[in-house]
Amino acid sequence: MQYQIQNLLPKIESALAGFPVPHQPASLYEPIRYFLKLPGKRIRPIFVLQCLELFRPVTDQDVTAALATELFHNFSLVHDDIMDRADLRRGFETVHKKWNEPTALLAGDALMVLAYNALIMSNTNALQDLVQQFNRMALAVCEGQQLDMDFSAPETVPVAHYLDMIDRKTGALIAFCFEMGGFLGHVSESERQALHNFGLAMGRCFQLRDDYLDLFGNEAITGKMRGGDIANCKLSYPVLVSMASAGADRFLQIWNKKPAESGERVAAALEWMDQNNIASLVEEKITQEMENGMALLHFVKGDEKATTRLADLCKQLAYREK
Amino acid sequence: MQYQIQNLLPKIESALAGFPVPHQPASLYEPIRYFLKLPGKRIRPIFVLQCLELFRPVTDQDVTAALATELFHNFSLVHDDIMDRADLRRGFETVHKKWNEPTALLAGDALMVLAYNALIMSNTNALQDLVQQFNRMALAVCEGQQLDMDFSAPETVPVAHYLDMIDRKTGALIAFCFEMGGFLGHVSESERQALHNFGLAMGRCFQLRDDYLDLFGNEAITGKMRGGDIANCKLSYPVLVSMASAGADRFLQIWNKKPAESGERVAAALEWMDQNNIASLVEEKITQEMENGMALLHFVKGDEKATTRLADLCKQLAYREK
Repeated sequence: MQYQIQNLLPKIESALAGFPVPHQPASLYEPIRYFLKLPGKRIRPIFVLQCLELFRPVTDQDVTAALATELFHNFSLVHDDIMDRADLRRGFETVHKKWNEPTALLAGDALMVLAYNALIMSNTNALQDLVQQFNRMALAVCEGQQLDMDFSAPETVPVAHYLDMIDRKTGALIAFCFEMGGFLGHVSESERQALHNFGLAMGRCFQLRDDYLDLFGNEAITGKMRGGDIANCKLSYPVLVSMASAGADRFLQIWNKKPAESGERVAAALEWMDQNNIASLVEEKITQEMENGMALLHFVKGDEKATTRLADLCKQLAYREK
Repeated sequence: MQYQIQNLLPKIESALAGFPVPHQPASLYEPIRYFLKLPGKRIRPIFVLQCLELFRPVTDQDVTAALATELFHNFSLVHDDIMDRADLRRGFETVHKKWNEPTALLAGDALMVLAYNALIMSNTNALQDLVQQFNRMALAVCEGQQLDMDFSAPETVPVAHYLDMIDRKTGALIAFCFEMGGFLGHVSESERQALHNFGLAMGRCFQLRDDYLDLFGNEAITGKMRGGDIANCKLSYPVLVSMASAGADRFLQIWNKKPAESGERVAAALEWMDQNNIASLVEEKITQEMENGMALLHFVKGDEKATTRLADLCKQLAYREK
């Protein structure tokens, strides 16, 4: 990710530092400043701008507009942290923990409004369409979070429902990032649609890789014990694939053991998965989504070097080791 | 309000019933449908459309766009109810009470997005400016709610700070309603600014009348015991004026009595206010704001009948008895 880190990230950080966030009342805007300053990969605006580079060079105005995706992402994190009762985010105290829930609720609301402030700075002749697609994405993200919460109640869900949930919860915003790059690059509607679907495929790759690393990552590289999602009874993709496999009876016996967080249960579940090649099934799914996505990306006619750079970035993220 | 009720309200209710709200997941959208169906005055879209009538006849597209103000208002109510831990809204269970807090949080978020969906349906050649003003309003509403919460901690605040708080918490949206009417009517920027300031003045009138009725209303007409705000230790305008008056020492003695909700304390505070003509001071302030507002409204050159109708509506609200 040398290119992104050397060329785009400094521009994004500088635009974010200069983005107009009001100061008063400090009780509302200090928490927002705090959260925006937490270390982040800023991968979403990078997606927007790298996609735009398929079509034309990036201007300062584009960088500011692309912040819409980062601001919206931060809105959703602040609100998700309230819902998940999470105390830490990126190793730092969450807003509702450091301040309180009402302040975190309002800070999230204001972050969403700031995202729209950035969005309307877009250099496009199709502002109405752009905002409409942003709204569609924003609703999908809310839907995905609601579905994710609904999923914590039942004992299992079909794999297809899980994919639908992650398409909304995390895929929709990634899809919008590439679509926004297309808007800023003034591409045709069918190309925008291809970029959107490319983003959905990449969103699946990234999320499935998250799920994969949690269960099958190299602990020496990830720095985390394998199986956290099992201990937390999270219905992640590998778990749902296991539940839908031929030997599911035995897996469910292990899965339903109490206490859920026992090391014995986690180890037994991982052993079963290893014996049943679940890791390979996840990897195959990622590769399949990657191929689908790449076909869509290459359907879009853009600068060749920029296309390769974007494809490489996505592959690095989809096959990352930590 | 015959004109509004007979002509505009049915159009607004019908547009709201037909406004595209997704259905799945029902766990997210049912709460939204429920809340939107609660009986409401729909006064904000009425403001937009009545203001627009100063400049041209209202179309169906305008009615849909004006729903942005109603949807945004409902977003803020759902989130405020969480923060205020309110069980009832308009006599019905609040969303977080009927469902749960995470669902209410997401339902509010989605309502805000739906407001933007309505807003971009506006028939205007200045969509970017319109969304920018909407965003400014939306931030002000968040700021107002935060300030209102901050106010519940200290023992008193200057009257000017209270007015600033209500300008944001309730005035900003009313100001935006009239401004939006100006946008849809394609008026000049200085006229839009006048409509905005007219709205701020009206917002003060309506809020101060709320405060007035709580303490000095005719119980036979309002149907409520006088002094609820005193029992709740709410720093409303009449209370802050009392605290800033010459005889404040005696008032503060009464105000600081415990328990706060005792009928004796409320009666003593009301008696002190009656002796010190606090009600008249509030009425004078309302009249002064009304005069300021009317001057601004008449600065804007619009249809004479429509202007009179709008002025009459505002006066009815500012001098209402219940």
